[in-house]
Amino acid sequence: MTRSATQSRIDEVLARREAGIPAEWRVTISSDATKAMNDLLDDKERAIVDMTAIQLRDEIAAGRLTAVAATTAYCKAAAVAQQTTNCLIELFAHEALASARRLDIEFTRTARPVGPLHGVPISVADDVDVRGHNASAGFLSLVDKAVDEDAHAIAILREAGAVFFCRTTKAQVLALETVGYFGTTSNPWNRELTGGSGEGALLGMKGSPLGVATDVGGGVRSPAAANGVYAFKPTSGRLPAVGVSVIHPEGWHGMPRTQGALARSAEDLELYVQLMCEAEPWHRDPALVVRPWVASKGPGRKLRVGVMRDDGVVAPVEAVERALEIALNRLRRSCDIVPFEPFQSRQAWDIARRLYWPDGGARVMDALADSGEEVRPLTKWIIDQSGHAGRILGTEELFTLCAQRDDFRTRLAAHWADSGIDVLLMPVGPTPAPIHGTAKYWNYTSYWNLADHPAGVFPTGLFCDDGDTHDPYCFPRNPVEKEIWDSYDPSLQAGAPLCLQVIGQRGYDEDTLWAMREIAAAVRAA
Amino acid sequence: MTRSATQSRIDEVLARREAGIPAEWRVTISSDATKAMNDLLDDKERAIVDMTAIQLRDEIAAGRLTAVAATTAYCKAAAVAQQTTNCLIELFAHEALASARRLDIEFTRTARPVGPLHGVPISVADDVDVRGHNASAGFLSLVDKAVDEDAHAIAILREAGAVFFCRTTKAQVLALETVGYFGTTSNPWNRELTGGSGEGALLGMKGSPLGVATDVGGGVRSPAAANGVYAFKPTSGRLPAVGVSVIHPEGWHGMPRTQGALARSAEDLELYVQLMCEAEPWHRDPALVVRPWVASKGPGRKLRVGVMRDDGVVAPVEAVERALEIALNRLRRSCDIVPFEPFQSRQAWDIARRLYWPDGGARVMDALADSGEEVRPLTKWIIDQSGHAGRILGTEELFTLCAQRDDFRTRLAAHWADSGIDVLLMPVGPTPAPIHGTAKYWNYTSYWNLADHPAGVFPTGLFCDDGDTHDPYCFPRNPVEKEIWDSYDPSLQAGAPLCLQVIGQRGYDEDTLWAMREIAAAVRAA
Repeated sequence: MTRSATQSRIDEVLARREAGIPAEWRVTISSDATKAMNDLLDDKERAIVDMTAIQLRDEIAAGRLTAVAATTAYCKAAAVAQQTTNCLIELFAHEALASARRLDIEFTRTARPVGPLHGVPISVADDVDVRGHNASAGFLSLVDKAVDEDAHAIAILREAGAVFFCRTTKAQVLALETVGYFGTTSNPWNRELTGGSGEGALLGMKGSPLGVATDVGGGVRSPAAANGVYAFKPTSGRLPAVGVSVIHPEGWHGMPRTQGALARSAEDLELYVQLMCEAEPWHRDPALVVRPWVASKGPGRKLRVGVMRDDGVVAPVEAVERALEIALNRLRRSCDIVPFEPFQSRQAWDIARRLYWPDGGARVMDALADSGEEVRPLTKWIIDQSGHAGRILGTEELFTLCAQRDDFRTRLAAHWADSGIDVLLMPVGPTPAPIHGTAKYWNYTSYWNLADHPAGVFPTGLFCDDGDTHDPYCFPRNPVEKEIWDSYDPSLQAGAPLCLQVIGQRGYDEDTLWAMREIAAAVRAA
Repeated sequence: MTRSATQSRIDEVLARREAGIPAEWRVTISSDATKAMNDLLDDKERAIVDMTAIQLRDEIAAGRLTAVAATTAYCKAAAVAQQTTNCLIELFAHEALASARRLDIEFTRTARPVGPLHGVPISVADDVDVRGHNASAGFLSLVDKAVDEDAHAIAILREAGAVFFCRTTKAQVLALETVGYFGTTSNPWNRELTGGSGEGALLGMKGSPLGVATDVGGGVRSPAAANGVYAFKPTSGRLPAVGVSVIHPEGWHGMPRTQGALARSAEDLELYVQLMCEAEPWHRDPALVVRPWVASKGPGRKLRVGVMRDDGVVAPVEAVERALEIALNRLRRSCDIVPFEPFQSRQAWDIARRLYWPDGGARVMDALADSGEEVRPLTKWIIDQSGHAGRILGTEELFTLCAQRDDFRTRLAAHWADSGIDVLLMPVGPTPAPIHGTAKYWNYTSYWNLADHPAGVFPTGLFCDDGDTHDPYCFPRNPVEKEIWDSYDPSLQAGAPLCLQVIGQRGYDEDTLWAMREIAAAVRAA
């Protein structure tokens, strides 16, 4: 396609998106994102978007709230979020309200909710199939890919009574920022910063109670952290995979592609995982392990929390360091805190960066070339990180790489077992939400994709401020650390929420969710 | 190596093996294998080798039997089995008796067994690492590979109080027969027939109560069936993998390599799997799923048993057909029997045969060339089956193949779900124990490796006899069926035990073991 043909195609796609937002939902955007929200939503609607998914569900099931009211409030909040942060690919309020109406009628008829998510609006990332919509996965060339069947996870949620109402932006490929044919998704707390992903920015704006996305390097966790919300990525093979993968050849499972969710409470994430497991998704999907949900009761003694302050490659900047220290102080009464030695962080990235690109990025380049879409700098950067951009790995190279991964996992298992910890508390990344175009160090999240441990994110309730300045007596240890530290500017990043990450033992998803709930409650109680 | 150097090497290795069998345990072998057993073992020893592992364990724990007595009886029985069928790579009675003595002393001191297998002798296939022994995996070039650490499964069994006493023969590569530098392993019921593997022949001779082996195409099931004993292969990722794989590149997991066991009762296999799961092996091995053992209570209604009489490619011969029909008649009272339509058997083999050989057999050929060992006909046959012998698959070819496998599994999952069955009852292979050199159709077993379902084998208590002649009105449907049918001769195979296979739902190992126990009991009660 010629450049101008590509541009007209983009214009057409974006015009369609605009048409999805009714004229009466247009707002004036100022630097204070909450103002626009107050302009459009009335008191009752604002009370609705303040609720968690479980609260909403309970209000609806008690007959105190209708699905239509819940859906209306969230559609309006999402419309404001879109106008503030550019986080949506599509708002389909009309269809959502029709679904909500059917649910209300059913509820009136039977006096019973149809399932544990009756009437709860759910947002979906743009790489997840929703019946009757497209899933472009961030690629212009896929914008009109017809989808006539729900992704497995979406089918389970729909069966549980969820109302789908919008699809959210995601990056072209693995990236901690979201820039694409639709523009740039920015952060509701500070629009100079990245929103991480559409799901992240949307939930940060209270534009959705629960969002479905994919995590293959930090895809649910990093955006949640940028926006001060909760996220969880389970051990792979536990929840039905969602998502169209443009990056990875079918049949390639070298790096686990894990489904995850974002929410505004730890309890909502627990409900989400429980619901998925109780649907026994393994009968349909042979990639899933047979493992019923067994609610965690915790360890029956003080929780043993390992703490990793620094991964040994890029130490967190002051704001993140401060949040972690404050959290630890608040946890000391209820938990045993022990240091956890970082384990081969650099080697882990060395394996992960190659596992991401078995074909040297060929599939991504082809998908971009199809539509004439430009290769974004962070797309080029991450493919280049592989060290073999443009070259497909040979069979024996691939086996060697997978053997290195297996060996890393075995050694990490021994390291973890030696530590005796229940869970690990650590940063989600070295900085608060990065300034646009600077998010280049993923290993605080991607490490746990490679290791395949469950990992959650929670907001500490703390925020970056002007005072979090870099200690001038502290020199970077390597060029990556220098680049990340150089990109940090607390005067620009002030106001960004500070989140932390809880890592559980591989396969112990229930216990990890339990621990995250306890830790988040203790840290936020102060 | 020159041919004569290779031969002297073999002579030296076999002389070492002979030296492991004390002169006083030499017996005269006649066509009736039980005669030699009666010559060497006294009444008390014969009563010991008649016991299952659980009976042995209970007798020892009750103080009515010593570990030394149990070990002595089994070492003598194994010595007879070796002289009858050529099933051992090594008998190490001296070391085993020393272990047994330590266990007896410990029991006297504490009046308690050290674990649930206190004093139970266990045999181990030649591809499984046992501390202080070699694991040649059937290759002359690996005979002196030093092993200074137990395989994970062996460490768990040792901890549970097991006594290791011998290692058994296995084929060079995937094969349903065992021929190698050590000679040919034959069948104790009829030495014109294959013993399947050393473990199979040994257990068929009551030379071991419990054997550890690997199943990647039928490796525990087919030999168990040939010898009239029980076997179980779990879903992959459930039990610690054992076994040195010469065939597969490290890092390659295209075809699941599953640990399994052979035993002389279904209950012993349940104990084995339970013991492995209760050791929580996933803490050490990241390839394992976190899935605690949960004893099955059955479906709480009549068991729904699917029956597959014919896989649509090679129909079973008369003897096998007769055993299945008799079994079904005996099951009709306690179970609901429904037909199960075979699902894409030919396509499954088409995927499996290629997944076995990502490197076109290069690693096997190299290992053989190292020692000058000859390429056995069935080794050449199975590598040729791949269709790309001598050529390593390209990366994209590999991805396509794995995607075909994933797709097959997804379609099979739907087919199984539609059938509504709890378990499937079917043959273990199209014929009774084959005449040496003719075992060329694996798809009754390998299909369930590809599908990754748990599968067990039990003896019906029936045997092939002269009357099981081929129906002359029945023509073969294809050349493979013709070849297998042509190889069948009930007058030569008379006396071969007839076994059946129980397939469970993927991931439902406990329920499969439960069903196999119930089905075997009902079939054998008659």
